[in-house]
Amino acid sequence: MSPRSEGIVMPPAGRERAGMNLALQLARRGPRGANPLVGAVIMAPDGTVLATGYHQGAGTPHAEADALNRLGPLTRAEARELSMFVTLEPCNHVGRTGACALAIQEAGIGRVSYAVPDETDRAAGGAAALVAAGILVEEGLLGAEAREMNHRWFAARAAGRPFTTLHIAQTLDGRIAAADGTSQWITGVESRNHSHLTRARAEAIIIGTGTLLADDPKLTARTPEGVDAPRQPRRVVMGYRSIPAGAALRGDGNFAHLPTHDPHEVLAELASTGIDHAMIEGGASIATAFLAADLVDEIWLYQAPMLLGGGRKAVGELGISTLAAARRYRLDESGGDGLIRLGPDMALHLEPLPAAQTTVTGRMPASAPQGA
Amino acid sequence: MSPRSEGIVMPPAGRERAGMNLALQLARRGPRGANPLVGAVIMAPDGTVLATGYHQGAGTPHAEADALNRLGPLTRAEARELSMFVTLEPCNHVGRTGACALAIQEAGIGRVSYAVPDETDRAAGGAAALVAAGILVEEGLLGAEAREMNHRWFAARAAGRPFTTLHIAQTLDGRIAAADGTSQWITGVESRNHSHLTRARAEAIIIGTGTLLADDPKLTARTPEGVDAPRQPRRVVMGYRSIPAGAALRGDGNFAHLPTHDPHEVLAELASTGIDHAMIEGGASIATAFLAADLVDEIWLYQAPMLLGGGRKAVGELGISTLAAARRYRLDESGGDGLIRLGPDMALHLEPLPAAQTTVTGRMPASAPQGA
Ligand SMILES: NC(=O)c1ccc[n+]([C@@H]2O[C@H](COP(=O)([O-])OP(=O)(O)OC[C@H]3O[C@@H](n4cnc5c(N)ncnc54)[C@H](OP(=O)(O)O)[C@@H]3O)[C@@H](O)[C@H]2O)c1
Ligand SMILES: NC(=O)c1ccc[n+]([C@@H]2O[C@H](COP(=O)([O-])OP(=O)(O)OC[C@H]3O[C@@H](n4cnc5c(N)ncnc54)[C@H](OP(=O)(O)O)[C@@H]3O)[C@@H](O)[C@H]2O)c1
Repeated sequence: MSPRSEGIVMPPAGRERAGMNLALQLARRGPRGANPLVGAVIMAPDGTVLATGYHQGAGTPHAEADALNRLGPLTRAEARELSMFVTLEPCNHVGRTGACALAIQEAGIGRVSYAVPDETDRAAGGAAALVAAGILVEEGLLGAEAREMNHRWFAARAAGRPFTTLHIAQTLDGRIAAADGTSQWITGVESRNHSHLTRARAEAIIIGTGTLLADDPKLTARTPEGVDAPRQPRRVVMGYRSIPAGAALRGDGNFAHLPTHDPHEVLAELASTGIDHAMIEGGASIATAFLAADLVDEIWLYQAPMLLGGGRKAVGELGISTLAAARRYRLDESGGDGLIRLGPDMALHLEPLPAAQTTVTGRMPASAPQGA
Repeated sequence: MSPRSEGIVMPPAGRERAGMNLALQLARRGPRGANPLVGAVIMAPDGTVLATGYHQGAGTPHAEADALNRLGPLTRAEARELSMFVTLEPCNHVGRTGACALAIQEAGIGRVSYAVPDETDRAAGGAAALVAAGILVEEGLLGAEAREMNHRWFAARAAGRPFTTLHIAQTLDGRIAAADGTSQWITGVESRNHSHLTRARAEAIIIGTGTLLADDPKLTARTPEGVDAPRQPRRVVMGYRSIPAGAALRGDGNFAHLPTHDPHEVLAELASTGIDHAMIEGGASIATAFLAADLVDEIWLYQAPMLLGGGRKAVGELGISTLAAARRYRLDESGGDGLIRLGPDMALHLEPLPAAQTTVTGRMPASAPQGA
């Protein structure tokens, strides 16, 4: 067989699971945002992995297309023998990229196993299209794992709101400004450059009128050299006070003022204008409002190695009175490492724990001996 | 030449600096505590590194002895040709280990270059003893670097107080207990096991009456299996309220109650009983008192991936009103990694920045463009 092999041969026992498991691992290489994490593996009948792919974020090829692109030339008969393992039902719509169901059909792949169905209106129907094209289709292999991997993305889609990324830059004791209001710069230039990567991926950046009036930020996504990134997110201000005529974020006019305190309302408004991924830049009141409403899907938490002992808190009252009710997260390795050093600072990439795990961890029996 | 070579040959140009630099790197492998970090390198005239050593903590061989122990058999004439590079003046006292000045003399090493003098009463005089034995002695190579590496240890010794390690276990937003007081367990079993390693190294553990009365801790150093470590630190309670008759920390009687709020007084009292390394376990009032008095020499900060939004703060008022006055730290790689994952948690090992660097970092010019 001529196609480029990825050099992996799956063992006969559990070959199917191994294929899907590899697809799950690949999926986690992608970044979170407007689209879910998706991975795909194309396997020959003898278990040889012929091609792999994953989705690298909105505007780039879907995982299926990425894998198909890496598959060498095949005869029709050869293609017919291949199986694709993909963590999400192949889409059936032509967005910024072509429909995957069609691409799979055109490649002549004989069998598709996907972990979870895609229930979004826009993309659904992929499985039906594949079946109609005579392809053997299976659903549900490692479905629980695939659902959990994107649990916040599915929840956001089900609620019809954008996926959200909260940005916090704080001291080790959770402060974003000293008592006299000084806050520039708590984190260093490496951290700030890193956060511009999120800005460049997001379709909107949300701040409160407090940050607007205190810092007059431009809110553009910039390269480390200070050049504007090619795609710019919409700049969104929430709160009742008005945006000064000379505010820097007015810029080219790609901004919006939403006179509300309700984060649900803000996200509904953004969804209605087609925004699928919003970054919440703060300040503290805005961050707290989104956290309290459980509307934060991932956090990039930058920590500068300093203590202030006082000043403005990064996170305010969340209505949590007891430890078992704490908001719990895990380090999120998607798109890279969950814990990274940025010059003197460090960044934590955090994913909210699925509800089921929250209580388990909260009540974790200490295997350490009695008495502290 | 018969002795075991470490396989490193230093380049002719800058051979001396390279030797001392290696000694500095080796020093940082050791843990901080009662003794300073010290490294040693034994070099042949052609630049070959014949042996290296470092100090692995109180009660273990000094760096010089560690290096000498690794040196193979030598004739008197061969030894005479060798140079030792050591980051601190060899000691002249017989403590838990023999005097290094004597060991170097007995090994017949011809030349010793050390970076900084040892000004502690107990150990000083090593250089003079070496000179008296006819050894060529040089002081000051990379002295600034060697001093900075142990700047807090030198400061503690100069003040006649123990070196201190602060332990904090907190949420991402700097809380050590929820609003209702629940705090067990914020960090997981891996973090708690790790903190027992510090307990086992320390000669005393300090808590406040608040923690005593809230948690009734045993405060013993234990292995992950719950077995008491062979050496146990003295358990010290500070504050005016008395220790209940049945308090768990009374244990075998190796405890002290110091009815004071003054951290200087506590450390002076511990020093007077021969304690060189104290661990500060908290709670928040005690941690804050030591931080505010600038009496914390290293921090182990454990962070659990959760947010509380309220509850008890890990660090209270430090009298800092503006960002430029923040307490600044750097990740401390000594004894291992400065940033480690412990199950779901992470631990930061932090060293206070030397005063000179504090202001520089605080005023770091942002190379990022104008406007946030
Ligand atoms: N370190 C960081 O990551 C970071 C990021 C951004 C900002 N900051 C700092 O944060 C500080 C500003 O913090 P902040 O809390 O004043 O600013 P903010 O959160 O940006 O804005 C607060 C204002 O937004 C409006 N608002 C909208 N929705 C709200 C809600 N649900 N709850 C409460 N208020 C709501 C209110 O103003 P109206 O009266 O107009 O409605 C409120 O006063 C600045 O010092 C800035 O530098 C830090
Ligand atoms: N997460 C952690 O790392 C960690 C570690 C330890 C404790 N904790 C938690 O911390 C909580 C206890 O905190 P806490 O602040 O009440 O306890 P604390 O700091 O252990 O004790 C405070 C008490 O110590 C005395 N004291 C001595 N020196 C003082 C000073 N310089 N300033 C103020 N008070 C001084 C005072 O009592 P007198 O009136 O008796 O003088 C004061 O009420 C508990 O919930 C415990 O579980 C957490």
